[in-house]
Amino acid sequence: MDINSNRVENFSGPACLQTTTGTVVTIPLDMAMPPLQVHKVALPQPRTTVQKLRHRLSEIFFPDDPLHKFKNQTWYRKLVLGLQFFFPIFQWAPNYSFKLLKSDVISGLTIASLAIPQGISYAKLANLPPIVGLYSSFIPPLIYSVLGSSKHLAVGPVSIASLVMGTMLSESVSYSEEPILYLQLALTATFFAGLFQASLGFLRLGFIIDFLSKATLVGFMAGAAVIVALQQLKGLFGIDHFTNKMQLIPVLSSVFHHRDEWSWQTIVMGVSFLVLLLTTRQISIRKPKLFWVSAAAPLASVILSTILIVCLKSKVHGIQTIGHLPKGLNPPSLNMLYFHGPHLALSMKTGIVTGILSLTEGIAVGRTFATLKNYQVDGNKEMMAIGLMNMAGSCSSCYVTTGSFSRSAVNYNAGAQTVVSNIIMATAVLVTLLFLMPLFYYTPSFILAAIIITAVIGLIDYWAAIRLWKVDKLDFLACMCSFLGVLFISVPLGLAIAIGVSIFKILLHITRPNTAVLGNIPSTQIYQNLNRYREAVRVPSFLILSVEAPIYFANSTYIQERILRWIREEEEWIETNNRNSIKCVILDMTAVTAIDTSGIDTIKELRKLLEKRSLKFVLANPVGSVMEKLHQSNILESFGLEGLYLTVGEAVADISSLWKAQP
Amino acid sequence: MDINSNRVENFSGPACLQTTTGTVVTIPLDMAMPPLQVHKVALPQPRTTVQKLRHRLSEIFFPDDPLHKFKNQTWYRKLVLGLQFFFPIFQWAPNYSFKLLKSDVISGLTIASLAIPQGISYAKLANLPPIVGLYSSFIPPLIYSVLGSSKHLAVGPVSIASLVMGTMLSESVSYSEEPILYLQLALTATFFAGLFQASLGFLRLGFIIDFLSKATLVGFMAGAAVIVALQQLKGLFGIDHFTNKMQLIPVLSSVFHHRDEWSWQTIVMGVSFLVLLLTTRQISIRKPKLFWVSAAAPLASVILSTILIVCLKSKVHGIQTIGHLPKGLNPPSLNMLYFHGPHLALSMKTGIVTGILSLTEGIAVGRTFATLKNYQVDGNKEMMAIGLMNMAGSCSSCYVTTGSFSRSAVNYNAGAQTVVSNIIMATAVLVTLLFLMPLFYYTPSFILAAIIITAVIGLIDYWAAIRLWKVDKLDFLACMCSFLGVLFISVPLGLAIAIGVSIFKILLHITRPNTAVLGNIPSTQIYQNLNRYREAVRVPSFLILSVEAPIYFANSTYIQERILRWIREEEEWIETNNRNSIKCVILDMTAVTAIDTSGIDTIKELRKLLEKRSLKFVLANPVGSVMEKLHQSNILESFGLEGLYLTVGEAVADISSLWKAQP
Repeated sequence: MDINSNRVENFSGPACLQTTTGTVVTIPLDMAMPPLQVHKVALPQPRTTVQKLRHRLSEIFFPDDPLHKFKNQTWYRKLVLGLQFFFPIFQWAPNYSFKLLKSDVISGLTIASLAIPQGISYAKLANLPPIVGLYSSFIPPLIYSVLGSSKHLAVGPVSIASLVMGTMLSESVSYSEEPILYLQLALTATFFAGLFQASLGFLRLGFIIDFLSKATLVGFMAGAAVIVALQQLKGLFGIDHFTNKMQLIPVLSSVFHHRDEWSWQTIVMGVSFLVLLLTTRQISIRKPKLFWVSAAAPLASVILSTILIVCLKSKVHGIQTIGHLPKGLNPPSLNMLYFHGPHLALSMKTGIVTGILSLTEGIAVGRTFATLKNYQVDGNKEMMAIGLMNMAGSCSSCYVTTGSFSRSAVNYNAGAQTVVSNIIMATAVLVTLLFLMPLFYYTPSFILAAIIITAVIGLIDYWAAIRLWKVDKLDFLACMCSFLGVLFISVPLGLAIAIGVSIFKILLHITRPNTAVLGNIPSTQIYQNLNRYREAVRVPSFLILSVEAPIYFANSTYIQERILRWIREEEEWIETNNRNSIKCVILDMTAVTAIDTSGIDTIKELRKLLEKRSLKFVLANPVGSVMEKLHQSNILESFGLEGLYLTVGEAVADISSLWKAQP
Repeated sequence: MDINSNRVENFSGPACLQTTTGTVVTIPLDMAMPPLQVHKVALPQPRTTVQKLRHRLSEIFFPDDPLHKFKNQTWYRKLVLGLQFFFPIFQWAPNYSFKLLKSDVISGLTIASLAIPQGISYAKLANLPPIVGLYSSFIPPLIYSVLGSSKHLAVGPVSIASLVMGTMLSESVSYSEEPILYLQLALTATFFAGLFQASLGFLRLGFIIDFLSKATLVGFMAGAAVIVALQQLKGLFGIDHFTNKMQLIPVLSSVFHHRDEWSWQTIVMGVSFLVLLLTTRQISIRKPKLFWVSAAAPLASVILSTILIVCLKSKVHGIQTIGHLPKGLNPPSLNMLYFHGPHLALSMKTGIVTGILSLTEGIAVGRTFATLKNYQVDGNKEMMAIGLMNMAGSCSSCYVTTGSFSRSAVNYNAGAQTVVSNIIMATAVLVTLLFLMPLFYYTPSFILAAIIITAVIGLIDYWAAIRLWKVDKLDFLACMCSFLGVLFISVPLGLAIAIGVSIFKILLHITRPNTAVLGNIPSTQIYQNLNRYREAVRVPSFLILSVEAPIYFANSTYIQERILRWIREEEEWIETNNRNSIKCVILDMTAVTAIDTSGIDTIKELRKLLEKRSLKFVLANPVGSVMEKLHQSNILESFGLEGLYLTVGEAVADISSLWKAQP
C-alpha cells in the first residue's frame, strides 16, 4: 500500500485533480479511508490587558532581556554584574595581560597617526579651529574606554557629522565673522547631540536609528562624500573666497568662478599628495596586510609637506598653512554652552541631526566588528556611552565624536584587542597637544584637503548601490533619493526624503500585498502557489487563497476587491474549461500576521457576500494575535466550528467529507 | 499499521519527543521507514524588470481589473460598455420601470423633506448664506444621477465638510466683514475639492483615502459632532456674539461668557423642539419601519416653528430668524472662482481637506449600502463622479457636497431603488427655490440649531468606540487621538495626528514582530507555536523558529537579537532539563512576506554567527518574492541545497536522516 497516497485520499472528494494546464490526475480510490483528523485552532493563552501591555512593552524596550544575567544570583554577584553592566571596563580589565597590551599599543599608535591629521582636517570641515579636532581626539576616547562595549571602535571626530554640523550652523551664523558665537553653538550642539544619544539609549529607543536603512545610508554617505570632496577643492586649489553653501551647483560654480585665485604651486603639490594618498589607499585595499601603508600615509604626508613648505617658504608665496596652534590640554568649556537666546533652536536641531548620524555610524561600526570577532555589542548601552562621551566632550572643548568607519577598520587590522588602543591613541594625542603643536605651523592647507578627500572617497560604495539595484529596486530608489537629495537640496532634507521613501516602501507592501491561489502538491499535505509550483494542482470545488500581509485599514478594501476578483476569474476559468464549479473558498491566513478592526469587518463582509452567492467561506490557520481578535470581535460565532481549520489540508478533507455525507 | 504515525516517523531521528512540560512521548520505531520525500523550493517564474514593474503597477492602480468586461467583445458592444462605464445611467435607464419610479418618488420626496431644512442649516454651519445650501441640494444631485454608480446615495451638503470648511476659511477671512470674499473662497475651495477628488479617481489613487481608517473616523466624527453641537448653542440660546474658534474650551467659555445674551423664550422653544426631534430620532432607531417619523420631523418642525413665530411676533421680540431669501435658480458663479492672490493657498488647502473628508463619507456610505443590496460600487469611478459634481457645483453657486450618511440611510429605508430618487429630491428643491422661499422669512434660527444637533448626534458612535477598545487597543488609541485632537487642537491637526497614529501602528507591528518557537503536533506534519498548542512537542536537537513579519531595515536588528535570545533561552532550558543540545535552527519563513537588503544581510549574518557556534541554520518555505531576492543576492549559494526546504516537516526529516547517515 502506498503510504503517501493517504494524504491525498484525505480530501479526494471527486476522484481526480485538475492541474493548472488542465490535465487530470487520477487518484486510486481503492483503499481504506483513514480516520479523518481535524485539529482545533487554539486561542493563545488568555491574558489580561495589563499582561498584554507588559509583554508588548518588554518586547519594544527590552527585546534582548538585558537583565537575564542577574537572575538567580547572590547580592554580591549582582553588584559585580551591575558594575560590569554599566562600566564594561570591569569586564575586561581583570583579565588584561601584557600580550594584549602589546597589540593595543601597536594599534593605538597606528590610529593616532591617522587621528591627528584627520582630527585637524575634520575640525576645518566643521568650520572649527583645527585644535578642536585634536581636543576631540583626546577626552572622548578616554571616556569611551571606560563606558564602551566595543573592542575595536576608534573614537574621534568623523567626516559626516563634521560636515553636517558645519553646514547647518554656518547657514545661520558666519564662522569667520562671529567665531566665538559659532564655537559656542558647536559646543552646545554637541551637548544636545550627546543628550539625545544618551536619552535614546537610556529610554531604550535605540530602534529609532534602525529607520535609517542601509540603503538610505549608502546614498546619503555617497552624496555627503561628493559634497565634502568638492568642498576640498578650496584648499586643494588655494582658493580664498568660497561659498558657504553645500549643494553641488553652488560649490562647483564657486570653484570655477574664482579661477583667478587658483594657485598653480598649490595645485601641483596638492594633487601630487592626493595621488600619493589614493595610491596608498589602493595598496591597502588590494592587500589588507599592508593596512599600515594607508594608515601611516596621512601623517607621513603631513610631515613631508610641512618640511617641503619650510624649505620652499622663501621661494613660493601665498600657500595657506595652518599657522599658530595653542599648546596645552583641553580648556574647560562648560561656560560656553548656550541654553538661551535666538540660536537655541538651531543648536538643538543641529545636535539632533548630527547626533543621529554619528550614532548610526558608531553603532554600525561597532556591530560590524563585533560580528567579525563574534562578540555582542548592546546597542542601547553603546548609545549611552557615545552620548555621555559627547556630553562630557562638550564641557571640555570637544565637538561631536563617534566611532569612525575608516579608523576603526585600521584599528581592527592593526590587531587591536581591547578598547585600550583608544587610551594609547589619546596618550599620543596628549603628547602632541603638550609638545608638538608648533610643528604644525607650516603644515599646508592642501594636505588637509587631500587627507579629507582620501578619507571620504571610501564612503562612496558603488558596489553596494549596484547590489541594491540587483536585489531590490525600491531600496535602490531610497538610496538614489537620499543621494540626490543631499547633493541638490540639503543634508537634513535629503535624509528626511530618504526616510520617507523607506517608510513609503513598507506602507506600499502593506497597501498592496501579494495574494495567490494555492494548489495541492500531489501525495502531500502541502498547498502552494499554483503559479510558482508547476506540480501543484487545483482542488476541484475549492478555491484556496492566501494573503501575504496583515489585514489593516490600509489594505482591507483592496483585499476584499482582490479576493472577489480571484473568485470571478476562477469562475470564468471554470466556465471556459467546463469544470466543477466552486463551492468553497478557503482563506489561508498563515501569513496574515495581524488584523485590525477594519480587517475584521472585511472578513465579515466577505463572508456575507459569499454566503449570498452560496459559497462556503472558511479560514485556515490564523496566527495567535489574529485568532485572539477574531475571538474578541465575536466573528467566530458567525463562522461556527466548521468555519475555522488549523491547516488547509484539514479544511479540504473535512469539508469534502461533509459534502459526501450530505450530497 | 497506524497510517498517521508514518508522518512522525519521517523525522524521528531520536526515538522520543519532549513536550513543553518535559514529559517524553515515545514513538514506535518498529515499522518500515517510508521513502523520504524532499520537495525543492521553486523560484517564481523569471520575469524581467519591466514585467515586474508592470505587474506591480497594475496591482497598485488596477487591482479590480476594470477593463475585464471589455475583453473579447465586438466594437459595438465595447462602445455600449464604454458608455455604461462612464455614465452608469445607461446601465439602469433602459430597464427603468413605473414600479421602480413609484418607490423612487416616495423616497425622493422623503429625503427632500430632510434635505431642505438640513441644506439651510449646514450652509449656516459653513458660515455661508442659507440659500447656498439649497442651491447645493439641486445641481449636484442631478449630476450625480448621471455619473454615479451607487443606487442609494442621497447627495447634498453634509455636516462634517460644512464644519471643516467653515472653520478653515473663517480662521483667515471674516464671513461677517467680507461676505463676498468669503463666498468666493468657499466656491474656489469647492472647485479644488472637486478637482482633487476627480484626480484621485482618474489617477486611480483612491487607496489614499483608505489611510483614514474606520477607527480614526469614529473618533474624528465624534469630536466634530461635539464641536458642531456645542456651536449650535449660539442659535439655541439666542446668543448674538459668539467665538469663531472651533475648540472645545473657547466655545464653552463663549457660551458662559455671554450669559446676559441668553434669551429664555428662545431657550424654551429651542429646547422643546430639540427634545421633539430627538424623540422622533429614537423612535426611528427603535423601529426602523417608522423611519418616516424622524425623516418628516425636521420639515414639520420648521413649519410648526415658523407658524409659531408668525403668531407670536407681536408679543415676543429678539428671536433670530432666517430673513429674506432670494427666489430663483442657482446663479452661475464661474466668475467668482479665485485662482490668484494671497488666499489661493488657503482655498487649496481647505479644498483638499474637505475633499478628502467628503470623499471618505461618500465612498463609505456608497459601499455600505452596496454591500447590503449586494451590488458593487467602483471606488475610483465614484470619486470621479463626486469630483465632477463638485467642480460643476462650484460654477453654479454650490459648495462641497457628497453622499450624506443620515439622508442615505433614510433613502434606503424609504425604499429607493435607483439614483432617480436624487432627481426627485432635486425637483422638490427646485420647486422650493422657485416658489417657496418667502415662507422661510420667519423661520427661527433655533430650529436650524436643533436640526443640526439632532443630525450630528448620530455621528457619535459609542458602540464602535467600545468595540475598538475590546478588540484592538491601538485602534482605540488612534480613535481617541483624533477625537481629542479635533476637540482641543484643530480639525486638520486632529486628523493628521490620527493618521500618524494609524501609520505608527503599522510601523510598530513591523518593528517588533512576533516570533515564536514551533513544535510538532504528534502524528501530523503540522508545526505550531509551542506556547499556544499544548499538544505540540519540541523536536529534539532542533530549534524551530517562526518570524511573523517581513524582514526589513526597520526590524532586522531586532529579529537578529531576538533569534539569538531564543537560542540562548533554549540552551539554558536544555541545560537545566538535561536534554539533547540543539544542533540545527530552522527558520520558518512562511509569514515573512517580504525581505529587503538589510533583511538579507541579517540572514547572512545569522548564518555566519550560528556556523561559528557549530549550529546548522536552514530556512523553510520562503514565499515567492523572498525566494527571488534570496536568489538575486546569491545568498542561496552559501546555503547550498540542504539549507532550504519547502516545509519544516521535510527539513526536520531530511536533516535527521542526514545525521543518521553520518553519526
